[in-house]
Amino acid sequence: MYIHTVSHYLPTAVVGNEHFTQLNGLSNDWIIERTGIQERRKAAPGENTNTMTIDVIRRLQEKVDLSTVDIIVGATYTPYDTIVSLAHEAQHYLEIADIPVISVSTACSSLLNAIEVVEGYFALNKASRALVIVSEHNTAYNNDQDTISGHLWGDGAAALLITKERQSENDFAIKALLTGGAAHTAKATTAVMMKPNEGGVTMPFGRDVFINACQYMPKASLQVLERCGLTVDDVDYVLPHQANLRISRNVMKTLGLPEEKLISNIQLLGNTGCAGCAIALSENWDMFQKGQRIVLTVFGGGYSYGAMLIEK
Amino acid sequence: MYIHTVSHYLPTAVVGNEHFTQLNGLSNDWIIERTGIQERRKAAPGENTNTMTIDVIRRLQEKVDLSTVDIIVGATYTPYDTIVSLAHEAQHYLEIADIPVISVSTACSSLLNAIEVVEGYFALNKASRALVIVSEHNTAYNNDQDTISGHLWGDGAAALLITKERQSENDFAIKALLTGGAAHTAKATTAVMMKPNEGGVTMPFGRDVFINACQYMPKASLQVLERCGLTVDDVDYVLPHQANLRISRNVMKTLGLPEEKLISNIQLLGNTGCAGCAIALSENWDMFQKGQRIVLTVFGGGYSYGAMLIEK
Repeated sequence: MYIHTVSHYLPTAVVGNEHFTQLNGLSNDWIIERTGIQERRKAAPGENTNTMTIDVIRRLQEKVDLSTVDIIVGATYTPYDTIVSLAHEAQHYLEIADIPVISVSTACSSLLNAIEVVEGYFALNKASRALVIVSEHNTAYNNDQDTISGHLWGDGAAALLITKERQSENDFAIKALLTGGAAHTAKATTAVMMKPNEGGVTMPFGRDVFINACQYMPKASLQVLERCGLTVDDVDYVLPHQANLRISRNVMKTLGLPEEKLISNIQLLGNTGCAGCAIALSENWDMFQKGQRIVLTVFGGGYSYGAMLIEK
Repeated sequence: MYIHTVSHYLPTAVVGNEHFTQLNGLSNDWIIERTGIQERRKAAPGENTNTMTIDVIRRLQEKVDLSTVDIIVGATYTPYDTIVSLAHEAQHYLEIADIPVISVSTACSSLLNAIEVVEGYFALNKASRALVIVSEHNTAYNNDQDTISGHLWGDGAAALLITKERQSENDFAIKALLTGGAAHTAKATTAVMMKPNEGGVTMPFGRDVFINACQYMPKASLQVLERCGLTVDDVDYVLPHQANLRISRNVMKTLGLPEEKLISNIQLLGNTGCAGCAIALSENWDMFQKGQRIVLTVFGGGYSYGAMLIEK
């Protein structure tokens, strides 16, 4: 299984920390110290997870023909429409008939859940050319006045073409992929929530999220490496879920890796949910050299987690 | 792949057609003639897709041990929480650590999408014992005063234990399963929608849904039969998505099958979304005889569709 190419889209409006200083009295330094976030993007009126889906598809089409895509998997926890999901919107836009179309909603870990669903369809020989779309419109459900987590969130989307067979020398091979869940832990179902009818995104137990993210992302990363007979010494970059720069640094420290190997976009984008890692992969696509290995690792609300080792 | 057992839960409050007569002037006869619906269930305050998830799990636990479940797939388009999805809630309740947990949101077709995701995990040898939960809380997002579709919806949930290997003589074997999407058609993304921030469930082009449902469900049913070298003569029951009794009757007519072979619960439950077919399977579980074959077929918003042939 290979990642052939990736694209991303970011809304143009930038929201700096001064917005939250004015609103809630949170200083720029305070926000940066605790989260690493300097600014984030905010979707314009009329933009949503479905419009951003079309934006990332158009950008992917500039690089590759999508007319032979035979499965579409979308992911979001900030849906514009839960019936006409972003995967349906993508199929409608591409006008490809009769292919499986599915949307997943597994919080911030959804990118890897979506790719694992694709892996299953490939194993079944029910598909061989997958379009995966991750799109988050956090600001549609966020309360900026929430002093605990209102300043964390940003909007953005990405799309990946994943194929069963290698398409080019520049593809990333997916060497190992695992997902899991830690919802058995005490606060997993109350620490971070997104209830459309009850206040949107809230994070009453951020510290518990922090502790578990710092535990599960390194653990899952080591598991995928072990499955390939590799160690952290074989890793060129780590791309963790973009929840908080302190979490990302903690993950690197636990893995015993220097910060130069950390890929991070939270400084300029905030937490873009399940889209964050894929956006970062797209932003840095041309930087990666043949033979380099990246571990992507995710952790999110509901305490789903996962890791994926890819090699160029 | 086998369906070992199934359970369902229905809220206790019954909403009769007289509620909509009082509210909108729609007569009992008018509603029954156009939809077949006599009454539907409404979740109580405090109930939601996640509480109903625990209800169906408890009922399943009365029949089978769930401690060795190694994947959970949830499905809903009427989420209580899009971050702490019903699959996370299920994992939390069951206290099973480190298994893949995923929620899908592919409108009314999600039951079969969820089972196909499980099929993929089985093919990958990443799981062998799957808990699938379908739970809909339509009344949380419905506008009763909507004279076009406000009277259609009901609440309910179901859970299935699906295993890679046969567990008992009474299991249903899944002989063939397919899903597809018809979102390429003109009105697929506007005919029925569920926008949490823009009015909830609406169905401006019900006739287009009707026409496409009547076309795709028979077509998909014939495809799964053909894959097994069977014809409609080999079918004991058809269990279509419970959207409208007129659609179900039209599906039977197109397939050339008598109405005695139709399984339907829409009369007493309304359209319970992706839970409808699974609830009906649970309600009728003890009726099925060894060797009998059922075709389940679904069609929903975004125009996803699917069919599954099962044999006891």
